[in-house]
Amino acid sequence: MEWYLIGIGGALLTTFGFVPQIIKMHRTKSARDISPVTLLQFSAGTILWALYGYHIGDVIIISANVISFITLVAAIILYNSYSRK
Amino acid sequence: MEWYLIGIGGALLTTFGFVPQIIKMHRTKSARDISPVTLLQFSAGTILWALYGYHIGDVIIISANVISFITLVAAIILYNSYSRK
Repeated sequence: MEWYLIGIGGALLTTFGFVPQIIKMHRTKSARDISPVTLLQFSAGTILWALYGYHIGDVIIISANVISFITLVAAIILYNSYSRK
Repeated sequence: MEWYLIGIGGALLTTFGFVPQIIKMHRTKSARDISPVTLLQFSAGTILWALYGYHIGDVIIISANVISFITLVAAIILYNSYSRK
């Protein structure tokens, strides 16, 4: 069994995990039910993970968490635009 | 600098990242804006990560992803209850 593909699959699914949520907010122009704490908590978590990845010299951990962080910034911007509408 | 604390901090923040979202859905009894694709994608991702952790014998990866998966199951149950209200 190609175990590294399992690892890559898990990494891709979670790294881009907020993309469907971003698409839904963008499409519905609504974000009232989204928890901003969840978005901020994940953002802080990905920053710490990326720092840790930098410390241990792991390019995969750095890349995955920087990409995740970018999607979270997009999600937070959309949340701020649409949560009151 | 205690780098392992940075890693643990990142792991705790992301592992329990959906807890505030679960609390918000439970409190507001509303989940219309939540993307079920995001919840399912993260669920699948954590299963693959846990399998990969099992393969490489990493208890931290297994534990973090099993805990995440449990929170995601709770989030999916709440989404199914409240997304149509």
